[in-house]
Amino acid sequence: MIQHPSFRVEPWSLHETSLNLDVLAQSESLFALSNGHIGVRGNLDEGEPHGLPGSYLNGFYELRPLPSAESQYGAPESSQTLIDVTNAKIIRLLVDDEPLDVRYGELRAHDRVLDFRAGTLKRTAEWCSPARRTVRVTSVRLVSFTQRAILGIAYEVEPLDGRASVVVQSELVANEQLPSIAGDPRSAAVLDTPLLSEEHQAKEAEGLLIHRTRRSGLRMAVVMDHVISGSPRLRVVAEAMPDVARVVATDVLEPGQRLRLVKLVAYGWSHERSQPAMRDQVAAALLAARNTGWEALLAEQRAYLDDFWATADVELEGDLELQQAVRYALFQVLSAGARAEGRAIPAKGLTGTGYDGHTFWDSEIFILPVLTHTAPDAAADAIRWRHSTLPKARGRARDLGLAGAAFPWRTIDGDECSGYWPASTAAFHINADVAFSVVHYVNATGDHDFERNTGVDLLVETARLWRSVGHHALDGSFRIDGVTGPDEYSALGDNNIYTNLMAQQNLRGAASACERHPDKARELGVTAEELASWRAAADRIFIPYDDTLRVHPQSEGFTRHEPWNFAATKEDQYPLLLHFPYFDLYRKQVVKQPDLVLAMEICASAFTPEQRARNFDYYERITVRDSSLSPGIEAVAAADAGHLQLALDYAAEAALMDLDDLEHNVRDGLHVASLASTWIAFVLGFGGMRDMGEFLEFAPRLPDGLTHLAFSVNRRGLCLRVDVTSREARYSVRGTGALSIAHHGERLKVTVGDPPVVRPIPPATERPEPTQPPGRAPRRRSRE
Amino acid sequence: MIQHPSFRVEPWSLHETSLNLDVLAQSESLFALSNGHIGVRGNLDEGEPHGLPGSYLNGFYELRPLPSAESQYGAPESSQTLIDVTNAKIIRLLVDDEPLDVRYGELRAHDRVLDFRAGTLKRTAEWCSPARRTVRVTSVRLVSFTQRAILGIAYEVEPLDGRASVVVQSELVANEQLPSIAGDPRSAAVLDTPLLSEEHQAKEAEGLLIHRTRRSGLRMAVVMDHVISGSPRLRVVAEAMPDVARVVATDVLEPGQRLRLVKLVAYGWSHERSQPAMRDQVAAALLAARNTGWEALLAEQRAYLDDFWATADVELEGDLELQQAVRYALFQVLSAGARAEGRAIPAKGLTGTGYDGHTFWDSEIFILPVLTHTAPDAAADAIRWRHSTLPKARGRARDLGLAGAAFPWRTIDGDECSGYWPASTAAFHINADVAFSVVHYVNATGDHDFERNTGVDLLVETARLWRSVGHHALDGSFRIDGVTGPDEYSALGDNNIYTNLMAQQNLRGAASACERHPDKARELGVTAEELASWRAAADRIFIPYDDTLRVHPQSEGFTRHEPWNFAATKEDQYPLLLHFPYFDLYRKQVVKQPDLVLAMEICASAFTPEQRARNFDYYERITVRDSSLSPGIEAVAAADAGHLQLALDYAAEAALMDLDDLEHNVRDGLHVASLASTWIAFVLGFGGMRDMGEFLEFAPRLPDGLTHLAFSVNRRGLCLRVDVTSREARYSVRGTGALSIAHHGERLKVTVGDPPVVRPIPPATERPEPTQPPGRAPRRRSRE
Repeated sequence: MIQHPSFRVEPWSLHETSLNLDVLAQSESLFALSNGHIGVRGNLDEGEPHGLPGSYLNGFYELRPLPSAESQYGAPESSQTLIDVTNAKIIRLLVDDEPLDVRYGELRAHDRVLDFRAGTLKRTAEWCSPARRTVRVTSVRLVSFTQRAILGIAYEVEPLDGRASVVVQSELVANEQLPSIAGDPRSAAVLDTPLLSEEHQAKEAEGLLIHRTRRSGLRMAVVMDHVISGSPRLRVVAEAMPDVARVVATDVLEPGQRLRLVKLVAYGWSHERSQPAMRDQVAAALLAARNTGWEALLAEQRAYLDDFWATADVELEGDLELQQAVRYALFQVLSAGARAEGRAIPAKGLTGTGYDGHTFWDSEIFILPVLTHTAPDAAADAIRWRHSTLPKARGRARDLGLAGAAFPWRTIDGDECSGYWPASTAAFHINADVAFSVVHYVNATGDHDFERNTGVDLLVETARLWRSVGHHALDGSFRIDGVTGPDEYSALGDNNIYTNLMAQQNLRGAASACERHPDKARELGVTAEELASWRAAADRIFIPYDDTLRVHPQSEGFTRHEPWNFAATKEDQYPLLLHFPYFDLYRKQVVKQPDLVLAMEICASAFTPEQRARNFDYYERITVRDSSLSPGIEAVAAADAGHLQLALDYAAEAALMDLDDLEHNVRDGLHVASLASTWIAFVLGFGGMRDMGEFLEFAPRLPDGLTHLAFSVNRRGLCLRVDVTSREARYSVRGTGALSIAHHGERLKVTVGDPPVVRPIPPATERPEPTQPPGRAPRRRSRE
Repeated sequence: MIQHPSFRVEPWSLHETSLNLDVLAQSESLFALSNGHIGVRGNLDEGEPHGLPGSYLNGFYELRPLPSAESQYGAPESSQTLIDVTNAKIIRLLVDDEPLDVRYGELRAHDRVLDFRAGTLKRTAEWCSPARRTVRVTSVRLVSFTQRAILGIAYEVEPLDGRASVVVQSELVANEQLPSIAGDPRSAAVLDTPLLSEEHQAKEAEGLLIHRTRRSGLRMAVVMDHVISGSPRLRVVAEAMPDVARVVATDVLEPGQRLRLVKLVAYGWSHERSQPAMRDQVAAALLAARNTGWEALLAEQRAYLDDFWATADVELEGDLELQQAVRYALFQVLSAGARAEGRAIPAKGLTGTGYDGHTFWDSEIFILPVLTHTAPDAAADAIRWRHSTLPKARGRARDLGLAGAAFPWRTIDGDECSGYWPASTAAFHINADVAFSVVHYVNATGDHDFERNTGVDLLVETARLWRSVGHHALDGSFRIDGVTGPDEYSALGDNNIYTNLMAQQNLRGAASACERHPDKARELGVTAEELASWRAAADRIFIPYDDTLRVHPQSEGFTRHEPWNFAATKEDQYPLLLHFPYFDLYRKQVVKQPDLVLAMEICASAFTPEQRARNFDYYERITVRDSSLSPGIEAVAAADAGHLQLALDYAAEAALMDLDDLEHNVRDGLHVASLASTWIAFVLGFGGMRDMGEFLEFAPRLPDGLTHLAFSVNRRGLCLRVDVTSREARYSVRGTGALSIAHHGERLKVTVGDPPVVRPIPPATERPEPTQPPGRAPRRRSRE
């Protein structure tokens, strides 16, 4: 992991056996804990050394001005930036007056385990101070899935080689000094001291800090309490200053004696609630956690995760490293979304400030499909967050001269935060992506109430947007011109096929939902005429095709553009966006991330299998995979076309994107959508799963490297389990009732209580394996 | 003028008969004086009140950072901004201790005349002080065409109704306080106190200030001296501070006595020369002017202009207002370019800080063609300036991954200054425009040495650029994708016809020039293979055509885009760019300024007359004319299609653009290219002139409102005069030899010494007059 031998391959944990400061920042992202509401990076307990200290609350941001060289109508003037909130995980230790700092003295042992079933990060360290006194420090950290305001740490220290005087300072620290990050546009804007103190308190083993932001007007409170045990010499004092609250335990320990401190922390924030209300809110959350107690919190955490894994687990045989990686991915996807509840799921979850903590379209297209099948409540909450931003999206559509709602390209709370419109405002597909998440969720869960209360609004307003963004040409076709598709190396094309097919789904999905909820449609002022106009637009959507090359251009004219000169592109010129101007990238045939190929996955039935294979072959030659979103999709397309080894190569790249730091920026946070694409690679790729609306279709087929794949998906109250070997697939369901599915085109019924339905796997169509641009082929995944 | 009755219609001057503070800023632009090296706005002598104080030196700029919301490879980090330099035109007056300020007391008479033949701005004012003492003030101001460093002012004051004590303070003032301009992106960035003092001196009637800029590292010096006469009580003192030098004359005058002060000022700047060298440079220039003397300076100025008007004048009968306007336009175009000598001609000349003092493509396409025919040395100098920036343009091409040279979209000294690349970097036609200016100049003048020494480099490097920007598609066509044409309401189109035709000319022009100068071509490493590749690209350039509508799309696919909803666009939503996002403008059929229609003028032979008429009709319906560059071109196209009244309407709009402040921003400076387009409207429009390379073609035809049009053009050492009435055209030449021309398709030879060649005017093809978007038709020009 992080291409470093100190990480061990284990099926249910991420395990580091020595500390390497070279990859400290990366390990902080990998060992981050989050419940979707609170996120803490895997910083060492004592705070330093660090790559990037990081404590985050979902939705807690500061505003920063968005500069522009030439002012333009409709450009946002400020952006939202996720900020580092008060750090509550700091526990500093002094041993005989020497601060524990792994850069000094000698770190004799170091071990960290992120346990995917326990939901904890456990650290064990043996440190010999410069004065030659050795102590063992153990900490167990959790961010609770069951009590969303709560962070807990159990911390122990014991001397190993003689009596030691120890001081433990457990702190809350606001406005930490952050390292400055320059240059790379994917990194975050750093805001200095964003928090203004409103209140600080300390008494007994408790501390409280309340702060507000300067410009965004948000208020946060954090409170801590401790249960501390030690020798009879133990003393505890507390103190507070505007930016620091501190509980200090002093003790003198003999070998065998331990100082143990259980720190419980409650966080809260609001843009409306007063200072006293916030103080009470966090006090109440803390009291509840204190009453639960540390051991029960641990038990709740494990139970929550047991429940998750019972359906979410993807079992692999034949590649233990990928087994570990796919479980790591699922753990972190859950952590990003589990308790977001009314807030967005940021591109990096709450594991770093990369992309300013913004959420993008990949939340709907990568993360939500995974959560829909594995943790549907979290998916529903994320969609409800979009729904809560509808007033802003309606306003944005008005500003742009459009009907309906226009969702932001990047945002924390619903306002557009991008200052570069060709890659943001013009990427209107975000709106169809939101609609897709609704349709997909409702299809999977059958949740009629959700469709009624949340879905219809979203579907109707996005359909209205499309009807006004596109237009019928003289020949009757419905065209959507001048928009940007998913591929960020093209922009402002006409009739981007991904966009047009997704808009088609959106228009049809809205029309169907209005039919099912006529009263709701009436409330929204939807008339029969309007429904008819949506259907007419969807029926006549224009899909360009290159008759000469017999492939689909990702946008009209794309396949006539000049091919990128890959031969002249050096290895260190990737990612291209850091070495070539957009001018050049946009007008040539070079693809950052699958665009048409993604359309073929989500709207598979719009293409024949032969077209999909030809298109994949064509686009593989020009796709450079400068995006972490690429390999998961390419794995699916490769499997679909029968290139199973290539699919495995891509699936491995998706799975190891963050663990091996393939994009060299995991220090800024995990790539949550990429993690989600690991699940997509296995379930949609080797499982061949496609949602056909009325039923799920499967076309499972394993590469040589894998001997067994098993996964489950939630479907309309049932849990369908799919077991695949190289020879056959077995389908079974839990719950009540039966499920209609398809296996390689054959419709089947899988009934609860019946024996599993078993079907053989037909051989794949033999096709020559596609090639990639020079140097851009994925690493060949060899058999273990 | 400025739609105000205080301006008089006169054939050879701009004449204001009362002072209106409401339009003060506009009148300052209109009364600006410049020789292309120095520019001074028509501020009142006493400095205040003012709309915008303005003194400029061509090429003297400060750097300002170009902010960007998201950093991008290849985006410039700073921009150049023309700054207000030390103001040397201030002459303040105190009458019995009351400062002359027209806002106080009573301005009993006010008269200003900008004389197009004298090249002076004369002001006469009678002012009664709050203490009831009346004085007459007269000033004559000139910026010398013959001595480019020199500004001169003759200033007189006399009491009219009793003895008066007068104090005249003649000043140099650096770092003037400027009004802040916000909001409109077309205005300039205001830089506070950009000048750092290096030296200040005063003695006798002299004063000197030397300053340098903070960031751009430029140094400027200005020195003044005075010849002062008055009553025997006259006293003169001088003083200097870092930002002010002052010569003060005091006198006590009886009615009939005058205090007269002739102020001579010399300006200089350099980015290399030292402080002592600059001091000596301006001292030398001042000494030369002093030796010439004021009266001789006036005489030189008139002689220079007599020479200019002898060929440049456009005579009109039937519309005196247009006669005045076209001469005003020619005077200001000359003023912008006459003595620029190695510096750019900015979009607003040196009359204001609009567009940051940058030069754009319209210099080559609008201004230089006019200067080529009327003041060819100025045109050659402007092209030499482009040539001097070749190293920067080569570097920019390298940065963009292209061959040859890529000239900046907007600049002062050759560095790209735009931070919005879809409308700048992508507008590659600037490079073909530069090549066009070379080919056009060489064609008109036959200047073989210029072609060899300056032209070939420019043609070769721009041809190389095109060869690398475009590519041959599978069908052999040469395509130029993802570029922006002249119309700023579209961007990043494929095969913009203007761009493709201009690139074709560029490639062919470069190949021909290399044939004529094979040794020069060899120096540049041009091989026969390279020449062949340019010709092949030019021969196979792709020109899209819409077979259904039977018109040319301005870029591929344009005519399939959604038409702009003009019916829903309110009158106060123009210009559209201030009320709609580029996203919406770019993807719809709406045109800011002629694009395809401009291509039809410059590359007329690429279209049949019927195609030109159909295209004009089509684009008229969707052209909103939000650019001052539009009406001149539309006049030419309308005349070409036989719509003579419409052509007159547009010609009048072009002619009155600044005089009537039709764009509501003449306060920021004149639109020099628009002024030049007035000449284009009459000469290319009603004169029907087209440069066919080997000969000039004319297709003259007058609208009902004009009874006579006469103009001359320089052509290969001869001066061709064209006299047009409604019935016939007369062609005659001055100089030595003969000229081959065409009249309505008939080839003619016009020989010096022979009687004029007279030919009848054939009737125009009758066609229905095109329509414009609602509310966007030009004002109908009615007969006087």
